[in-house]
Amino acid sequence: MAKITPRATDYSKWYLDIINHAKLADYGPVKGTMVIRPNGYAIWENMQRVLDGMFKDTGHVNAYFPLFIPQSFLSKEAQHVEGFAKECALVTHSRLVNTDGGVGVDPNSKLEEPLVVRPTSETIIWDMYRKWIQSYRDLPILINQWANVVRWEMRTRLFLRTSEFLWQEGHTAHATAEEAEEETRKMLDVYANFAEEYMALPVFKGRKTESEKFAGADVTYCIEAMMQDGKALQAGTSHNLGTNFSKAFEVQFQDRDGQLKNPYSTSWGVSTRLIGALIMAHSDDNGLVLPPKLAQIQVAIVPISRSEEEWATVLEAGEKIRAELRAKGIGVKLDDDTKQKPGWKFAEYELLGIPLRIEIGPRDVASEQVVLARRDNRQKTTVPMAGLADHVSTMLDTIQDAIYQKALKFRDEHIFTVNNYDEFKEIIGSDKGWVRTFWDGDAATEARVKEETKATIRCIPFDQPSSLGTDPVSGQPAQYEVLYAKAY
Amino acid sequence: MAKITPRATDYSKWYLDIINHAKLADYGPVKGTMVIRPNGYAIWENMQRVLDGMFKDTGHVNAYFPLFIPQSFLSKEAQHVEGFAKECALVTHSRLVNTDGGVGVDPNSKLEEPLVVRPTSETIIWDMYRKWIQSYRDLPILINQWANVVRWEMRTRLFLRTSEFLWQEGHTAHATAEEAEEETRKMLDVYANFAEEYMALPVFKGRKTESEKFAGADVTYCIEAMMQDGKALQAGTSHNLGTNFSKAFEVQFQDRDGQLKNPYSTSWGVSTRLIGALIMAHSDDNGLVLPPKLAQIQVAIVPISRSEEEWATVLEAGEKIRAELRAKGIGVKLDDDTKQKPGWKFAEYELLGIPLRIEIGPRDVASEQVVLARRDNRQKTTVPMAGLADHVSTMLDTIQDAIYQKALKFRDEHIFTVNNYDEFKEIIGSDKGWVRTFWDGDAATEARVKEETKATIRCIPFDQPSSLGTDPVSGQPAQYEVLYAKAY
Repeated sequence: MAKITPRATDYSKWYLDIINHAKLADYGPVKGTMVIRPNGYAIWENMQRVLDGMFKDTGHVNAYFPLFIPQSFLSKEAQHVEGFAKECALVTHSRLVNTDGGVGVDPNSKLEEPLVVRPTSETIIWDMYRKWIQSYRDLPILINQWANVVRWEMRTRLFLRTSEFLWQEGHTAHATAEEAEEETRKMLDVYANFAEEYMALPVFKGRKTESEKFAGADVTYCIEAMMQDGKALQAGTSHNLGTNFSKAFEVQFQDRDGQLKNPYSTSWGVSTRLIGALIMAHSDDNGLVLPPKLAQIQVAIVPISRSEEEWATVLEAGEKIRAELRAKGIGVKLDDDTKQKPGWKFAEYELLGIPLRIEIGPRDVASEQVVLARRDNRQKTTVPMAGLADHVSTMLDTIQDAIYQKALKFRDEHIFTVNNYDEFKEIIGSDKGWVRTFWDGDAATEARVKEETKATIRCIPFDQPSSLGTDPVSGQPAQYEVLYAKAY
Repeated sequence: MAKITPRATDYSKWYLDIINHAKLADYGPVKGTMVIRPNGYAIWENMQRVLDGMFKDTGHVNAYFPLFIPQSFLSKEAQHVEGFAKECALVTHSRLVNTDGGVGVDPNSKLEEPLVVRPTSETIIWDMYRKWIQSYRDLPILINQWANVVRWEMRTRLFLRTSEFLWQEGHTAHATAEEAEEETRKMLDVYANFAEEYMALPVFKGRKTESEKFAGADVTYCIEAMMQDGKALQAGTSHNLGTNFSKAFEVQFQDRDGQLKNPYSTSWGVSTRLIGALIMAHSDDNGLVLPPKLAQIQVAIVPISRSEEEWATVLEAGEKIRAELRAKGIGVKLDDDTKQKPGWKFAEYELLGIPLRIEIGPRDVASEQVVLARRDNRQKTTVPMAGLADHVSTMLDTIQDAIYQKALKFRDEHIFTVNNYDEFKEIIGSDKGWVRTFWDGDAATEARVKEETKATIRCIPFDQPSSLGTDPVSGQPAQYEVLYAKAY
């Protein structure tokens, strides 16, 4: 079995080793593109299923808008085009012709207007909303889309930053500013709940600074998580877009009072980078560690024997256990392969991050017990077969919670409250973790810190202290307590 | 309420009216692109859920491959490039710059190699399979992908033919030709079962002629369905690709016998055009008719009252019924809106194709009964509230079957067995339906018929008669009995 580089040796290589050996993803033939392999896609399917349910429970419906956006749409919202024009895929022609070396672009197939492959869909969606919104009766519109998007990134890393990725993007339209703000915050809460309850990932909820907000938003809220190398990862964002897009696309509705008004809008998204977050937050030097709630296979049963007669006995016991666990709705795989040895299988299931392994040998069958091996802390316990499904179900909950608690403890131990800039630089410079400190609210201070330390303000947490001190960088009175970190 | 053009007046307009009034889809800003609106997308979600379950039950897993394919890949398989080069979207640049009129393509951002937006993914997938397949132990690979694809169609029609559409594409790799053939046929059966059991759409299973097969396939199997205007619609295809792509992409595996061999492959797909098929096969002049198994809302409860006291009573009864139906797993909506009149609601739910409507007035509550109104045949019956959930469940099955039987009867009445070419031309020319007749197996005969009548051989059905006669067009001895029709 291929060896995973330990985190302590090379964190970045460790991350890629996990992805490679657990067959989660691969680079595609075009620079910066990613193939999501079945093991990785299974995680995304589970994430989609849970999130989609949460979106529907909060009143949203799904739809699908076109991939291609006329280039002129992008420039209708001034900030928006600034944010996306420099890194986009442009479709300019519609036909290939035979050439000496194979095929080439047919110059006679040039499009009238070049098309942008969507980097995000605000513009094309608001162009459609203009047709769909006439009256307050047409509001709110609460639409979500599951889609691929393209951003021509130069420096890519599997799952975290690739030129194409999968995501969902919610786009809502409201009659009032208050409703839009409520929606923006509600969806941030959905993301935070998903991260904490399903991904076992503790997050800070807060607001982005002006320099870090979405291109076209009035306000961007975010959830931020800590990875095991002490860096931050933005795990989800929710934007209050005000009337920026409804004005840019000339969308008006007749309100109850008979007046024509621009609707308010929000957008919010999470992407396949969450898979990267999951790996970086929980996995170890033996492989992936998956929270049970997002694992397609939650339990792997490994029968162990030294002879064919024994094999029949342990396999039969395994089948019985599989049936019991399935009946309880637990995702289970019985490994009936006879070519590989148990030790190989144990390592394989550890690599794949399967939360719980059940080992069953002939003596276990005789004494009506099995061995449970937890992936998260690798502890083994022997338990009776009677009531096993209940026991396993409880243990999966215990594992889910333990993974969360471990990540929370790690995070809290790696956030340092500092009062002077030397300490700040020492912590960021030696990659110890995040810095919690005061900020004077000045973009110049933020820019200076980024320039000097590479750390950015990850968020202005919603939880603010009752009194504020001095910004350690500028020496000016603080407006906020903020979290600084290097980020993915 | 907007009026739907009757089928008899203008079938094509009727189709677009249904899509427009039921808010299923809309044209996007770029010519030939489609927005799938929430009501349409809900149908696709149900189709996806069912099909995805069927794919997994037959051992397949999902993955995701990149949208962009290097142009050189397309020409590696000679037939394949012929089929797709003339209608594809080509990405040539990666940056916009400011210009006088807004933004324009930055000529300095030209890509080294133009990229094709995938029209289908055989090439990029087989480029990856080369990395993943070394030994017979790596086979079979049974991967499916849910994705968007782009074909630069000139003549478009919502759902049926748009320049971008959503689909699934299965791509499998096998050690032997027999396994590949078995897979190709198995997936055609999955599609046929899905069409008949869920879409209530009777289909013919058969093989495409050489001139109609997929560009790059050895054999293409298909399911073909009849629409209400007597035209045919190809509802799904399954291709045996032989070793065409494994050879083109130089994929080899070491077999059990130690020899290096090219693996065999299949691909198979269905798309959002199935929504178009669903509309065209079952709907009527009052709107959409959805088979219960694909309807998100299967039952709409409409309380009816003339006063506020009565409203409280009927609403309470409606809530009780909703709870009962939900407990039985039935998709149900209770219409508690007080602004619209019952008559408006009835028409609205007919337009949306909701299979069953429950009407409940104060006298119904008093006599412990409700009125059931079927969408498919618009018949009303009065049934007791006791045991209602069971009654509704049974009725939904009845409706599902009735829709299928109606479509089957229509289809069988519109297929004409002919023995001479004059009859053939009369039937096709007057749009009476399909022609069942003999074919000599000559592509020239097929081409002549297409030229003279616009009909094509939809398929060579698997069910062949025990004896064959003469081709009515060429007068030559027949090789097959085939189905000719004009097609979408």
